[in-house]
Amino acid sequence: MQYFMEPTGVAIIGASQDFKSINGKILKYLLKHNYLGKIYPVNPKYKEIGGITCYPSVDAISEQVDLALIAVAAARVPSILRDCGAKGIKRAVIFSSGFAETGAEGKEIQVETLKIAQEFGMRLIGPNCLGILNVSSGLIASFSASMEMDSIKSGSVALVSQSGAVGFMLFNLLQEAGVGVNFVITTGNEVDATAGEGLAYVVENPNTRVILTYLEGLRDGESFKRTAEKAAESGKPIVALKVGNSASGQKAAATHTAALTGSGAAYNSYFDKMGILQAKDSDDVIDLAQAFLPGKLPQGAKIGIVTMSGGVGILLADRSEEWGLQVPELSEALQEEVRKVIPAFGCAQNPVDVTAQSLNQGEEFKKCLNILLASDELDMLIVAITMATGKMAEKIGLDIAEAALETEKPLVVCWSVGQVAKPGFDVLKNAEVPLYHSPARAAKAMGALYRYANFQRNWKKTSAEEIDLVRQAKIQLALKESSKALTEHATKEILELYGLPVTKEFVAKSAKEAVSIAEKMGYPVVMKIDSPDILHKTEAGGVAVNITSAQEVEATFKEIMEKGLIYNPQAKINGILMQEQVPQGVEVIIGLQRDPVLGTQIMFGLGGIFVEVLKDVVLKPVPLSREDSQEMLKEIKGAALLNGVRGRPAVDKEALVEILLGVSQLAVEAGEDLLSLDINPVTVLPQGKGAKILDGVLVGSGL
Amino acid sequence: MQYFMEPTGVAIIGASQDFKSINGKILKYLLKHNYLGKIYPVNPKYKEIGGITCYPSVDAISEQVDLALIAVAAARVPSILRDCGAKGIKRAVIFSSGFAETGAEGKEIQVETLKIAQEFGMRLIGPNCLGILNVSSGLIASFSASMEMDSIKSGSVALVSQSGAVGFMLFNLLQEAGVGVNFVITTGNEVDATAGEGLAYVVENPNTRVILTYLEGLRDGESFKRTAEKAAESGKPIVALKVGNSASGQKAAATHTAALTGSGAAYNSYFDKMGILQAKDSDDVIDLAQAFLPGKLPQGAKIGIVTMSGGVGILLADRSEEWGLQVPELSEALQEEVRKVIPAFGCAQNPVDVTAQSLNQGEEFKKCLNILLASDELDMLIVAITMATGKMAEKIGLDIAEAALETEKPLVVCWSVGQVAKPGFDVLKNAEVPLYHSPARAAKAMGALYRYANFQRNWKKTSAEEIDLVRQAKIQLALKESSKALTEHATKEILELYGLPVTKEFVAKSAKEAVSIAEKMGYPVVMKIDSPDILHKTEAGGVAVNITSAQEVEATFKEIMEKGLIYNPQAKINGILMQEQVPQGVEVIIGLQRDPVLGTQIMFGLGGIFVEVLKDVVLKPVPLSREDSQEMLKEIKGAALLNGVRGRPAVDKEALVEILLGVSQLAVEAGEDLLSLDINPVTVLPQGKGAKILDGVLVGSGL
Repeated sequence: MQYFMEPTGVAIIGASQDFKSINGKILKYLLKHNYLGKIYPVNPKYKEIGGITCYPSVDAISEQVDLALIAVAAARVPSILRDCGAKGIKRAVIFSSGFAETGAEGKEIQVETLKIAQEFGMRLIGPNCLGILNVSSGLIASFSASMEMDSIKSGSVALVSQSGAVGFMLFNLLQEAGVGVNFVITTGNEVDATAGEGLAYVVENPNTRVILTYLEGLRDGESFKRTAEKAAESGKPIVALKVGNSASGQKAAATHTAALTGSGAAYNSYFDKMGILQAKDSDDVIDLAQAFLPGKLPQGAKIGIVTMSGGVGILLADRSEEWGLQVPELSEALQEEVRKVIPAFGCAQNPVDVTAQSLNQGEEFKKCLNILLASDELDMLIVAITMATGKMAEKIGLDIAEAALETEKPLVVCWSVGQVAKPGFDVLKNAEVPLYHSPARAAKAMGALYRYANFQRNWKKTSAEEIDLVRQAKIQLALKESSKALTEHATKEILELYGLPVTKEFVAKSAKEAVSIAEKMGYPVVMKIDSPDILHKTEAGGVAVNITSAQEVEATFKEIMEKGLIYNPQAKINGILMQEQVPQGVEVIIGLQRDPVLGTQIMFGLGGIFVEVLKDVVLKPVPLSREDSQEMLKEIKGAALLNGVRGRPAVDKEALVEILLGVSQLAVEAGEDLLSLDINPVTVLPQGKGAKILDGVLVGSGL
Repeated sequence: MQYFMEPTGVAIIGASQDFKSINGKILKYLLKHNYLGKIYPVNPKYKEIGGITCYPSVDAISEQVDLALIAVAAARVPSILRDCGAKGIKRAVIFSSGFAETGAEGKEIQVETLKIAQEFGMRLIGPNCLGILNVSSGLIASFSASMEMDSIKSGSVALVSQSGAVGFMLFNLLQEAGVGVNFVITTGNEVDATAGEGLAYVVENPNTRVILTYLEGLRDGESFKRTAEKAAESGKPIVALKVGNSASGQKAAATHTAALTGSGAAYNSYFDKMGILQAKDSDDVIDLAQAFLPGKLPQGAKIGIVTMSGGVGILLADRSEEWGLQVPELSEALQEEVRKVIPAFGCAQNPVDVTAQSLNQGEEFKKCLNILLASDELDMLIVAITMATGKMAEKIGLDIAEAALETEKPLVVCWSVGQVAKPGFDVLKNAEVPLYHSPARAAKAMGALYRYANFQRNWKKTSAEEIDLVRQAKIQLALKESSKALTEHATKEILELYGLPVTKEFVAKSAKEAVSIAEKMGYPVVMKIDSPDILHKTEAGGVAVNITSAQEVEATFKEIMEKGLIYNPQAKINGILMQEQVPQGVEVIIGLQRDPVLGTQIMFGLGGIFVEVLKDVVLKPVPLSREDSQEMLKEIKGAALLNGVRGRPAVDKEALVEILLGVSQLAVEAGEDLLSLDINPVTVLPQGKGAKILDGVLVGSGL
């Protein structure tokens, strides 16, 4: 990726002297924004363009060229690429549309394009993208109209987008908000280089402080994970606008860049784990970029609100609490300090109402901000301004900017009026004080800072237990041997390898054996058909519970066997599974599901009607840490059930945590051989009494 | 309110020739914006200000004055008000702060102020407000800096705010967005005239099309309800920014204008019922005002998305579906039509990707919009533009504005770039085409139109059954007689008046009587202590179930009586309630709660762990229509339980609907005498088998 982003010389294939054409614009913008490397326009029609030598073909260039920019019609791309390869150019950005996104014919050209690149050891970005920017070196390799601006504000926000239009839309909005950018990478159809590689590059760059990304679907889960870990370690927040979660959105994503879209749930759970902040809108992306840019995170949840209007204060308090922030009443001592610098009509509680009179005062307003920022009663501050114009707006802006500069606490401004307050806005933008024009957006930004601060405090790289190679060999063998789902008994044999508390059970081949097992195990017992060909045991009449005598065992054995053969005459029946009957407890379910991109996710939920009616489950990527497991128990909506309600005792949560950790380890060792696991139900007994896995199905991926 | 808003002559008390002072600004803005009535500055210091005669006192004015504007220090307000009263001025707006919002002293002045007003039959707006506007008549009675603008755009959006600062902040944002306003009313402390009265006035005004309101708490529930009904009848949407729902927000609301804040839940349920759209932010208010202004509502949920970028299309699809909209794939026939007018690289499905090439085309883009708007496959259209600048932006704006003008379907624009596209923005603003700068905001606006359209289609004024005066007398007597909660048996006697299916039950005074009742009723029976002094019957050991023989009845009678007297030796015990035992079914709860402002709300939820752990309940204001009751059953999260899950049969929903309707009627007839009713549980039996009320407590309000 470095050769793409830091080339010493760039060739523009088909460069035009018509600066209104696409090929003309690419050249124009490189010149306009003072690209530091060498520029080689290639076009047999011209001797020179804009004072620069133009070459009839790439091989006519005598110097080394690192990067080719190609914006010609799709059909012409393969032959041009071949010329570039022959010349020894190792990187190309293909802007052109008309490839896989348009159908079979385009797809063929795309495949050919990739083949040629591979032949020459050349890497590609695109096709169907809007190019790349490295602002500080003036590498403006794009024809987006955003580049018309007189100068591009350089900074430390990096942007990686699978959609060219969205990428440059965000870029434009960032610049409008006064946010400086270092890199933009748009990857389009991703015939070769991916957004994941782009992210890896920008995260590694020491100049990057905040990463923004628009994603339709990742192709390279493992490399993305390494990047996310790197970002977490270095405290660089990633804000992701992940689309395609809705039914029609997914359809559109599939037709748009034919991306391999992982399921929305796996992304959500992985992003949560890695502190990746999910944006729902372009506004969110810009708002969060601003919030994170100063690099100040709150130490806790306590937010102070300074307002010139009681109403705006209430609105900010309402919205802040929705993000989990606390709006504490200030101590009497602090209130007294505050009262000295606010008008008598004001309010020194929190929200602190400094009233509109503050606009006419001297230093009091700034003193008030300093007092609040200095107090350990608050972790962050929102300053809400309503109407202020001209010089007054500028003064207010300066006061706030100074206060922001002097504090290590996050400070954001909510200033909800129109352009009348522009002088104030400009001051804040220049000082890089996060500025929002509505209360909800200011509160949302603070909520994101708080969430990310918590993530940073608690995050550590979770690694699985060491892999037990013998055990791993066994599970992989079991999964490979069976082309489909494993039986309950076979599943439980695997679960037992991980120390998981499965029911005591034995397979009886005959009624006589069944009786002898039951007598040894003690009544009551549960009897279930054991056949790889009968997975829906209840449906097949293959389950009987509460069997309390030898006589009943004998009769039931016969009945289940008969029913099984009626249900599926071809079924191979191993026998009847004789199982201890577990006392009543709280039923939960635990599952594994492997996402092709992001790997295996573990699911936990309450069983029975809770999962069936309310879909009350949580999902986390494996491996789980102990803290992760404990959190899962708290994150379900019905969590209170585990603590005991209506006179019932609390359940053995520790036992449940152990099961989750064991299942997580199983997922790690099974790796890609596993498709899914359903443990349903686990009966959790009262505290100290443990838990039992009553049933389970393990499914191999058939790899 | 009409005298406030349409005065023929206005006096400015303490008018100043210093146009930078508050009293100077009020005069300045009336002059600047060409107030059509007469202006009477009052100040003994001047003979004239700005070319207008200035009067030494109000009684020196010989003409009739309708309205006084007062912005002097709080302490001076009472004497000035007295002068105004003596002069015969019937209305005054008091801008001044320093009243009830600042503490005891201010509160005293506020009380005195009201007394004087009442003495002279004068009505007041304020104090602690930012005044009122009637834009078309030039009545700019405010000193907000927003009035500095050269001209105020008049229109048909009305704004009523309990906070002056929020009101004029919204006003300023509306003007910035090009939205014309007819009225602004800010009511501040509401010593007399209320936001409710303001709303009544603006809703009645034939020129009002959309109503926006900021509310901390209503004082006059009944009049607000009449206004909301009037708005619903005349199809005028109300967008409400209701604050004070969070813990700290409520605290802030209480200190801010000392408003009587009803509970958040009652507001939510009443707003839902009346189609009042709740805003969470100033952005929402402005966005929805724009959306509703064209007066076009969708006929269904099907949204078309036209985009120049696949990515933005997916984002819009994702967000639209979250609001309940459908993004249907277009029919092959319609796609074929569309394909004729979009580039070959485009996509004719939905989202329709016209690609950035459309910017360079002639009439095709507009044709595409017209084709989609003409099709009955779509009910509304979002047009998403990304990068377009200068003339190109203007052309796109004109194309869209024309298409919007020619259709009866809602059309909104999502144009997410900065000021580079201003020429396009300006065209759209002038044409009053709703314009949003982010996908989520455009989708949210469409979602609101859809929701309001549904409301308008389905809304009809719900009226209770006619009041049965005899029954009403009985319930009111029962509630008045008891200063506290009624016993279960007394409650059920009331419920029976409404035809509600309570358990068959009789009070037994002796063990002998108990046996005789049980024998007649048939076993098993339930026995419960019946005492007005023992409300927590289970806690007192006063409940026994599954009693199956005369012997057991006798023993239980003795046991319950003994335990009851141990629990509360002073308790008056009526006897033991002998109750039929109802077979198992699904348990639900039904309740009533009277909100002091908005009246009685009815609650419905699933019983047991569902209500205790998940708080899975819905709330609606009474009276309920049959449709309302049916909806309540669907709106709980666990609704599927009523339809039968895990092999259980569907319950008798019709019986449940009848109970809800009966309880609603009870609430209507009980009126203010009722504080609350808890029916917990109701056992609902399988379809056709009815439902039984097992227990209930009715509580009077003590009025």
